[in-house]
Amino acid sequence: MSMKNHHSRSNRADMRTVDLNCDFGESYSIYTFGQDKELLKHVTSVNIACGFHAGDPHTMREAVERAMEAGVSIGAHPGLPDRLGFGRREMAISAEEAYDFILYQTGALLAFVRAAGGELCHVKPHGALYHMAGHNAAIAEAVVRAVKSLDPGLRVYGQSGSLLHAEAERQGLRAVSEVFADRTYLADGALTPRHLPNAVLTDPEEALGQALNMITRGAARTSGGGEVQVQAETICLHGDGPNALHLAAALSRGIQAAGIRLEHPQ
Amino acid sequence: MSMKNHHSRSNRADMRTVDLNCDFGESYSIYTFGQDKELLKHVTSVNIACGFHAGDPHTMREAVERAMEAGVSIGAHPGLPDRLGFGRREMAISAEEAYDFILYQTGALLAFVRAAGGELCHVKPHGALYHMAGHNAAIAEAVVRAVKSLDPGLRVYGQSGSLLHAEAERQGLRAVSEVFADRTYLADGALTPRHLPNAVLTDPEEALGQALNMITRGAARTSGGGEVQVQAETICLHGDGPNALHLAAALSRGIQAAGIRLEHPQ
Amino acid sequence: MSMKNHHSRSNRADMRTVDLNCDFGESYSIYTFGQDKELLKHVTSVNIACGFHAGDPHTMREAVERAMEAGVSIGAHPGLPDRLGFGRREMAISAEEAYDFILYQTGALLAFVRAAGGELCHVKPHGALYHMAGHNAAIAEAVVRAVKSLDPGLRVYGQSGSLLHAEAERQGLRAVSEVFADRTYLADGALTPRHLPNAVLTDPEEALGQALNMITRGAARTSGGGEVQVQAETICLHGDGPNALHLAAALSRGIQAAGIRLEHPQ
Amino acid sequence: MSMKNHHSRSNRADMRTVDLNCDFGESYSIYTFGQDKELLKHVTSVNIACGFHAGDPHTMREAVERAMEAGVSIGAHPGLPDRLGFGRREMAISAEEAYDFILYQTGALLAFVRAAGGELCHVKPHGALYHMAGHNAAIAEAVVRAVKSLDPGLRVYGQSGSLLHAEAERQGLRAVSEVFADRTYLADGALTPRHLPNAVLTDPEEALGQALNMITRGAARTSGGGEVQVQAETICLHGDGPNALHLAAALSRGIQAAGIRLEHPQ
Repeated sequence: MSMKNHHSRSNRADMRTVDLNCDFGESYSIYTFGQDKELLKHVTSVNIACGFHAGDPHTMREAVERAMEAGVSIGAHPGLPDRLGFGRREMAISAEEAYDFILYQTGALLAFVRAAGGELCHVKPHGALYHMAGHNAAIAEAVVRAVKSLDPGLRVYGQSGSLLHAEAERQGLRAVSEVFADRTYLADGALTPRHLPNAVLTDPEEALGQALNMITRGAARTSGGGEVQVQAETICLHGDGPNALHLAAALSRGIQAAGIRLEHPQ
Repeated sequence: MSMKNHHSRSNRADMRTVDLNCDFGESYSIYTFGQDKELLKHVTSVNIACGFHAGDPHTMREAVERAMEAGVSIGAHPGLPDRLGFGRREMAISAEEAYDFILYQTGALLAFVRAAGGELCHVKPHGALYHMAGHNAAIAEAVVRAVKSLDPGLRVYGQSGSLLHAEAERQGLRAVSEVFADRTYLADGALTPRHLPNAVLTDPEEALGQALNMITRGAARTSGGGEVQVQAETICLHGDGPNALHLAAALSRGIQAAGIRLEHPQ
Repeated sequence: MSMKNHHSRSNRADMRTVDLNCDFGESYSIYTFGQDKELLKHVTSVNIACGFHAGDPHTMREAVERAMEAGVSIGAHPGLPDRLGFGRREMAISAEEAYDFILYQTGALLAFVRAAGGELCHVKPHGALYHMAGHNAAIAEAVVRAVKSLDPGLRVYGQSGSLLHAEAERQGLRAVSEVFADRTYLADGALTPRHLPNAVLTDPEEALGQALNMITRGAARTSGGGEVQVQAETICLHGDGPNALHLAAALSRGIQAAGIRLEHPQ
Repeated sequence: MSMKNHHSRSNRADMRTVDLNCDFGESYSIYTFGQDKELLKHVTSVNIACGFHAGDPHTMREAVERAMEAGVSIGAHPGLPDRLGFGRREMAISAEEAYDFILYQTGALLAFVRAAGGELCHVKPHGALYHMAGHNAAIAEAVVRAVKSLDPGLRVYGQSGSLLHAEAERQGLRAVSEVFADRTYLADGALTPRHLPNAVLTDPEEALGQALNMITRGAARTSGGGEVQVQAETICLHGDGPNALHLAAALSRGIQAAGIRLEHPQ
């Protein structure tokens, strides 16, 4: 992984930058989910659900319009065809199926973006598909190939150190390395599973510390108290949970106060 | 309706032309439907199901590939979100919902067409949505606006004399007037409902006669034995039914034998 | 309609009774809807969504358990297969399809009720299906026949004066006549459409007045200021909207204060 | 496992018996699947799809009616909520979700069986759910508990030697041990995976030999040429594939010719 390259690319005018992203448009039918509107103030890019795990044609149109009004960068957030499980349950899909699912959903969102006169900037697989693409080489290859076949200018958001990130680079796409500010890591760079101790950093100050370390030193705190190397080009903010908004505001303020510019990926 | 204009547009080098279209890619999951492969030999354009009433990401990719191999023109065939009813049951959707449904599905298909290096040429609403867009001005307006917002170069297939056809012209899109060779018409230009006498022309010779009259004289036979004016730029062939293939072959041969060129809409 | 009969049936020990019902279990996947838990304190029966327009196997099990804990009467609330539209859009289904939809969904709910050791007491079609069964004789016949074929002891909730109510009586089922406390009526006994003036009674005192008049005098206020005859065996409370809980509490208290017992239908 | 018990139960009047089962009612919407009608002549029980992986309210009603006309025993065939994958893809569902899925689907089918005046006799999970229940103790426990909570008189079809079979016995239900005549086994009693050599017995004579050995000697041929112990109370016939009908007829005739009675499980 050519870390140097990315650092030079993501620094402009001697100033460090980072992207803050959040999931968006996850409502469906009469149901609402997340605190979409408020979070928009704190992020620089959004991942819009595309109708498989969440979202529907109406919510997609509305989400695109809101994102454009807020001036944030728009990405597709395709998931598994499992609305009942919100795309969080792994499914034994083939690589070919992953390719087809990504292409279908990203194309559907792209239509709304084009109709609104906007620009689709990135693709970030959702939930179980994100994790499968991070661990399974065939799925990663198919996901990236689907994105590339639609538009090679699209960025791919993948977890720092994941197969998805490496595969996007391998296929020549702009791979954007993602980290999680409110989580600790394992020694191998994976997230500490939620059921283990010290997995989640609930204190906004701790999460901010984790974020700043990841951005400035490329180092993330592990659950065991050590450090592991990560590359923080974009930080994922969660839109649900009682403290989502509070944490987002704290991170946004704290990161900028440290002299780091919030900016969607170049 | 400026008939003159269309006639001049659809005649090149003193030769009449007509398009033969059929629905395509209507399989789903493990289920197959229609006689897709064989029909491809007899048509010049196909309407590919987009995953709401029929089709899924896999069948869409495959259908696009087959259509490109066969050299036929590719259209989107978006339907109502009613897979259980195959999109044939009218639903009380709003015009805004129609807009969103058209955009979502056409965008999804467009992604597969782009990935395959092909070109999306037209949009034809399916089943109940086709009929609703033909009769309901607000739905027609929304359907055409959705197509236009995605790509104003897309053609719209609508029934001859329908609101959908008129609306596509009004919004400045290329409106392609569709007729049905194996059906008779009512005096007002609507199709004779299937439960009435003389609604369906089961004899291939009769259907060919109907087709040739419509193409060359702009006249369709009514169930009562009279004639009504229609504009035949594209003829819809049905892919299901025991005689579908036989009828398609007879029409294709007979039309060409009459000196009319089969060609997708310009 | 034998009003006498019903009055004698619903009066025990010289005391008038009425049932208060609300929709229940309308969540889905990760999405929640309505104020289920709080409303349970104010109603005597619930209509549980069965997985077509809302609800899923998990929410159904949970809803049954909660209803049993609260000691309220359990009913099935089957809807149209239109989750995206929450079952509120009319669909051109056949009577046979209505029969199949009712049977499938009611059977699914019955399984959870039986597994929990409870009793299924009634069926109330949801949304557009409720309205279609109220106006369309063939749909009404099929809905009632489906309920009867599963268990002739099940009650059918139908709008006062509707075809559904009459059909349930005709087929020998216990028909429970439903009214709406926060709505005015038209002269023909239908609800005043929401877009017309005076359609909704937002003031809890007015809604209570409407309820008491309907229960004690069989008279409902019309939008024009007159009265129309209704039969109030059960009153529908809405679970959504900002004032749902406030209105429910006011009605429950006020009705009991007037000496009317709240009791699920006998 | 008390083999003795079962043998005495399944032998009446000194005659061996076996059940032949097949999947049934797997059509959906306008789509048909399998050779339902013809296969009915050769089986003694059917597993009817319940609307998650295949089937819908209409096909379920029709399948129940056909099965009753044919006099075969009716079972529910609940699957994963994955229509697009026909329930064949494993999904990371919880045991609680498995419980809810089984109860919902079996209840829905039970409604059609009751409405038709029939009797529901067994439950056999479909596809990936069948395999998951065979290998995963928590899923097996939940599946059996769901069946028992609906009706402890229901039989459970599970693969010979599987956790599902053992769990059904443990919970006191009638467990029916299932084998596959056209497949070879591994030394541990599992089916030889289809991609390995000698996995499938395409020759009807070989399949019949496998069936007779399993029924009379409790021995199945392995892919390596050895034998493994199985218990053959029911044999699964496949309804799809070009030779399905031919194989079914050959097995039915050959088994009866060997003096074994075809009979649904007691």
